[in-house]
Order: sequence, then structure tokens, then C-alpha cells
Amino acid sequence: MQKERGILIVLSGPSGVGKGTVRKELFSTPDTNYEYSISMTTRQPRVGEVDGVDYFFQTHENFESLIQQGKLLEYASYVGNYYGTPLDYVNETLDSGRDVFLEIEVQGAAQVREKAPNALFIFLAPPSLSALEERLVGRGTETDDVIASRIQAAKQELEMMNLYDYVVENDEVTKACDRINAIVMAEHCRRERVEKRYYRMLEGK
Amino acid sequence: MQKERGILIVLSGPSGVGKGTVRKELFSTPDTNYEYSISMTTRQPRVGEVDGVDYFFQTHENFESLIQQGKLLEYASYVGNYYGTPLDYVNETLDSGRDVFLEIEVQGAAQVREKAPNALFIFLAPPSLSALEERLVGRGTETDDVIASRIQAAKQELEMMNLYDYVVENDEVTKACDRINAIVMAEHCRRERVEKRYYRMLEGK
Repeated sequence: MQKERGILIVLSGPSGVGKGTVRKELFSTPDTNYEYSISMTTRQPRVGEVDGVDYFFQTHENFESLIQQGKLLEYASYVGNYYGTPLDYVNETLDSGRDVFLEIEVQGAAQVREKAPNALFIFLAPPSLSALEERLVGRGTETDDVIASRIQAAKQELEMMNLYDYVVENDEVTKACDRINAIVMAEHCRRERVEKRYYRMLEGK
Repeated sequence: MQKERGILIVLSGPSGVGKGTVRKELFSTPDTNYEYSISMTTRQPRVGEVDGVDYFFQTHENFESLIQQGKLLEYASYVGNYYGTPLDYVNETLDSGRDVFLEIEVQGAAQVREKAPNALFIFLAPPSLSALEERLVGRGTETDDVIASRIQAAKQELEMMNLYDYVVENDEVTKACDRINAIVMAEHCRRERVEKRYYRMLEGK
């Protein structure tokens, strides 16, 4: 009987929003059921970083060869170095029935969206929108210019959200983690998913 | 500024699955954020039942007049008595920004689906499907007839699920409650919902 495939969870959001902190907090609790997909990079290991724990460290040549072979689910280049997600690891883990968690930049998330449209896309949002809401509701203690530029920033953020299924505000790290865990738990209860499993069972597969 | 409308949560499932027990457990925790929609009925109050707490008790004439005025979100008749959900209460509570929780029979849920397609439909499933899965996987300790009739029952259950967004297995009441709470929390993070709120804010509404 075929195992139910795991869920590919993609956490992304604007840089500086605290994706890494939220990811670390998620994986610091012992009952986390997701497998963290370790990224591949061509940058040099920093002191204390371990190959296969923090990153899979690769040479430029190897990385470019993996790109050409289509072995990366997503990749990007920052400050002269490549960063990417190994496709085989992700697929093997999902096939074994476990959920895989990616914490990546928005450009990478857009690539995953194209290659794995069934993944669960979670946008980590700064609390700036809610803060803006409070400011707009409250008395005018800000100048019109400040408010106008904040509205502009908020609009750009809203445009970025467009590719995502869920928006989690990072007002507090533990609250953001609770929401992410709830989203994944809910996703496992989606009728299409549960139904498919049962139909497969009834067909004896 | 307009408040975000609450979510209408509909819990239903086959009779005998334990909907009432799960609902009571959900509302026994002090931090439950949903408003329970008390049903209206024409049956006589039982000893200890309080009008406005257990049910809104109504005469047959009143109930039928409410049906004719379209004042019920859903209703059904059992053993000569009517049971239904008052529409005004539901709408007023949702408008005030609070989530409303309905625990109703599958026939009623089908009526809500037509009148409130944006509601969140959760199907509470007996653990029979998973139990069946285990039996099919394990050694054949059941006769073919028993298995065949269970497969038949499972298929009927799967057909009932079709109108629902989520399926929650009632293997353990507290686990079922955790899943329901996770589904509602996730629903509040859905991008369409969050985005709408922010766009409305930016338009100053």
C-alpha cells in the first residue's frame, strides 16, 4: 500500500522578517514532525559550521553542474555565491511520507511554486501592516509623508504575498510558530488529501 | 474601519460519530474563541434544560412562521419536531467579528453550504476508515463478507465527505479538538482573508 506523500512546506517572506529565527524555534521543539531541508551553498563554511548540518558545502563547479542536471528545486546567487535546495533529498523525504520544510528567499519560493505547485506556501509578514493599521485608526501622530511611504511599503508587501497560500504575521516568534504548526496540521486534514488516501486504500493500492 | 467578518464554522458528520461530545469539549476550554450557535427546537425541554442555553424552545407555529420568513439558516425535522439555526444571530455575531460554531446534521450542513458557501465545513469522521485500512493491511482475520460490507460503508462515508473542506477523524476527542482548532487558526491566516483586510485598510475602510 502506497504511503501518503508528505507535504512540502515553504516558508518565505521579505528579508529581515525573521524567517531564520522562526525556523530555528520550530525545530527546537522535540515534537516537530517536519524534516528541515538543508541548503547547498558554494560559500566558505564559517567557524563552527558543519557540512551536512548547517549547509551542504559545494564547489562552484559542482553547483553549476547540479544546476545543469536539474538537481536543484530552487537556487539563487547572493554576493557571488550560490544557495539552493537539493531536489533529490526533498523528493525522497516526501515519498517516505514525511513533510519537508524549506526556509528560503522569495525568489526561490517563486521557483518552487512553478516546479511544485502543490506545496504549501507560507508568507512570513512583518507586523508593519498591523502597526500601520493601528496608526491609521489612531490619532495622527505621524506626518503625512511618513504615512504615505508606509502605505507604499505595505502595498509592495501585499504584492509579494500574491503567490502564497497563507500569511503568518511575525508579531511574536512563538505565535508565528503556533500558526505555522496549525496550518500544517490543517493541511493534513484537507478533504482532497484525506479522501485520496482512502480511495487509494479502497482500491487496494 | 470595517471589522473583519468572523468565520462560520460548520461541524457535521454521520450520526453517532460524536459531534456533540467534540463540541462540548471544544467549548469546555476557557480560551475558545468561537460563539456557539444555540439551536432552535419545537421539542419539549427536558428536565434541567434551560431556554437560551441548551436550545431556544419554540412553538410549532412560531417555528413554521420563521421558516416562511427565511429566518433560519438551516432546519430539519426529526421525530415530529423541528430543529434549526437562527439566521439573525449567526449574521450579527459574524458581523461583530466573532467566529460562529455550528454543530449540525449532514442534511443541515448541505443547506448551509448553499446559503453560506464561504463557511468552513468540517466533517467529523469515525475512525472506521483508518481501522479498515489497518485491517486491509494486516493479516486476514475477518471474513470476506465483513470486509466487503465495511468497504461498502466506507464508500458511503466518502461520498458524504464531498461537500466538506476538511475531514477530522474522531479517534480521540482531544485530538479531534486540536485539529479543529488548528483548522480555524489556519483559516484566519489564509492569504485571501488577510489580504482583503489589508487592502480594505489601505483604502481607509
